[in-house]
Amino acid sequence: MDTEGLLSQRMHRLKSSAIRELLKHSKMENIISLAGGIPSDALFDFEGLNEATQLAITQQPKNAFQYGLTEGSEKLREGIVTLCAERGVIARADEIIVTAGSQQALDLVMRAVVDPGDVFVVERPTYLAALQTLQLAEANIMSVASDSDGMVVDELEELLKTQKIKGVYLVPTFGNPSGLTLSRARREQLVKLAHQHHFLIVEDDPYGELRFTDERNPTLSQLGKEAYGDAANIVYTSTFSKILAPGMRLGWLVLPQWLLHKVAIIKQAADLHSNSLSQTVAEYYLGLNRLPTQIAKIRAAYKAKCETLAGLMTQELGDYISFDMPKGGMFLWARFRSQVNTSVWLEQAIKQGVVFVPGEYFFSDNPDCSTLRLSFATATEEQMHEAVARLRRAL
Amino acid sequence: MDTEGLLSQRMHRLKSSAIRELLKHSKMENIISLAGGIPSDALFDFEGLNEATQLAITQQPKNAFQYGLTEGSEKLREGIVTLCAERGVIARADEIIVTAGSQQALDLVMRAVVDPGDVFVVERPTYLAALQTLQLAEANIMSVASDSDGMVVDELEELLKTQKIKGVYLVPTFGNPSGLTLSRARREQLVKLAHQHHFLIVEDDPYGELRFTDERNPTLSQLGKEAYGDAANIVYTSTFSKILAPGMRLGWLVLPQWLLHKVAIIKQAADLHSNSLSQTVAEYYLGLNRLPTQIAKIRAAYKAKCETLAGLMTQELGDYISFDMPKGGMFLWARFRSQVNTSVWLEQAIKQGVVFVPGEYFFSDNPDCSTLRLSFATATEEQMHEAVARLRRAL
Repeated sequence: MDTEGLLSQRMHRLKSSAIRELLKHSKMENIISLAGGIPSDALFDFEGLNEATQLAITQQPKNAFQYGLTEGSEKLREGIVTLCAERGVIARADEIIVTAGSQQALDLVMRAVVDPGDVFVVERPTYLAALQTLQLAEANIMSVASDSDGMVVDELEELLKTQKIKGVYLVPTFGNPSGLTLSRARREQLVKLAHQHHFLIVEDDPYGELRFTDERNPTLSQLGKEAYGDAANIVYTSTFSKILAPGMRLGWLVLPQWLLHKVAIIKQAADLHSNSLSQTVAEYYLGLNRLPTQIAKIRAAYKAKCETLAGLMTQELGDYISFDMPKGGMFLWARFRSQVNTSVWLEQAIKQGVVFVPGEYFFSDNPDCSTLRLSFATATEEQMHEAVARLRRAL
Repeated sequence: MDTEGLLSQRMHRLKSSAIRELLKHSKMENIISLAGGIPSDALFDFEGLNEATQLAITQQPKNAFQYGLTEGSEKLREGIVTLCAERGVIARADEIIVTAGSQQALDLVMRAVVDPGDVFVVERPTYLAALQTLQLAEANIMSVASDSDGMVVDELEELLKTQKIKGVYLVPTFGNPSGLTLSRARREQLVKLAHQHHFLIVEDDPYGELRFTDERNPTLSQLGKEAYGDAANIVYTSTFSKILAPGMRLGWLVLPQWLLHKVAIIKQAADLHSNSLSQTVAEYYLGLNRLPTQIAKIRAAYKAKCETLAGLMTQELGDYISFDMPKGGMFLWARFRSQVNTSVWLEQAIKQGVVFVPGEYFFSDNPDCSTLRLSFATATEEQMHEAVARLRRAL
């Protein structure tokens, strides 16, 4: 890695630790947090989780407490096949690896595919923890802009004229932090480019099920299979964290054949296999058929919360701050109409008793420092009213 | 990485996958496995685990299912402080990071400290999965021999005359695969060398509690603190896998101050934090005070199993195969008296219906191909009789 790369890595480590510090504030008394991407545990299906856990430890105690397969339990992978199919992601169980959340999924894929210096393209803004995995893999991170229709794929196409790239990482649906969704036309364009230029797409889809409308975009994985008969250059990853419970640390990867073995070997070195207890609980939970009801409940609640936060922001701060209305997910991505450095402004906000994440942390380069990410998942309606009032006071 | 490094890495990936293939055999009907390092689930404390799980999901459901701290739950780290103290490892809770088993502990440490090409020294033989983490970190792996007293530290001292080294990885107590224990004198010598030459010791201690006698060696971490007032160049790692249940995927690291933040940042990128459900169950399990009884039970059972296997091996195969009697742990490391390639012989053994792990897989270089690792943890007494009879027939 060259000096600039090292410098950038150090900078991002600092950023990461800045966020860690920040999130400590969010646990302080009287502080209302709009910062963390933390699902509301008021919405967790504790009754179903309790029932599934009882079943796991009484019916399959050995499976729950003994070593398991590196790729994940066969029964859980069969369940994931069904979940994927409902999203248009057609996969066999032996193409799936169960991971410790989608965070580990990203780390494993980057370790498997990135050689130091390889160019990986992300969106501006992009998911911070994906940047961390790319930095650990010593990728040469480049970025393209996004607008209301998600990643500006034309800009990627332009980049490809002069630059060989190894892969593109994106959250195409209800992005973190942007809340934005890649349009159908751009999805097709991206899949086509990947096929033509032989780069890998890492399609990170933690939020796809949390949609507020009936509109459903096809996954990149699905478009790849439809267009070319396979999705050999698309990795799809998702998680139980946002639809069931993040503490279980269960996500998954759908991998093309050529990557399966390599990722399995790295998974084995990384932690042997994912937690057996959580996997067995998840198997039974899926068997209870409560997930569709649970997802519908989360979707309705987040939609209402999003509308509340968006309404308050428009009403109280609309003269200063603008945003696109999310169609799903957990985040509202906002921008000051004038030049305000939100990292500096955060200090005022903390003094008033509210935290958010300054937008600059989500940029690999060319940060727009007047942006901020607000999560509507965790705070209650009452807290949101107070939080926005405090933001207003912080101005 | 140079060509030789790549070649070696490929070779080891092949080795790793060879073992994976091998372990598939061990799940076939009628095959008796002496291969896997798998704790006997006949010894698991299902009653206590069940009680602890009930408590976790009824008393602390939010902690069990919500995101947690990267470093691990505070209460569990307090419990680990106590476990460590009983072993002579003096640590504060804020020096501990809870990991997904000690496998992840090794991977995190190697990612944090090894720059490509750095020399890391292991024993001949050494733990295979540690080699994998070193290879992923692109370490230049060197090795020193071991004998009945464990790693030959004189050989390391000789190496240090000409070679700058970054670290030494070892399982000093009841090693995997060797079953051997580093003598007190060599422990002191190793700690002194690390202090003088500023290299890191990674002390991997999964089996220390599984001792068959009352003899207890001080940990390297303890010796470091006694000799120099700190253990700034010693990382200690252990796990709940061998004393409680491996499926929970819970281990821990005790880290010197300068490494804590770096490892936490990598842990965050790797999987955010360890499984909340398992951590909450482990907290309650420790609270039940059943662990001391459980460890005593495992210790007695493994001791009896070890004596059975050792007795049978001496009786049936003593003319062909020799071994040192382990004083603890899960493994019996044996050697043919004549030149027999155990990887080749394994095929005969599989035909007779028994599997072991050929010793050569545990060498980073200069393999002794006439060695083999036999686990006495999993098989029943009856199976051991049959297994050794089959090994005899395979000759």
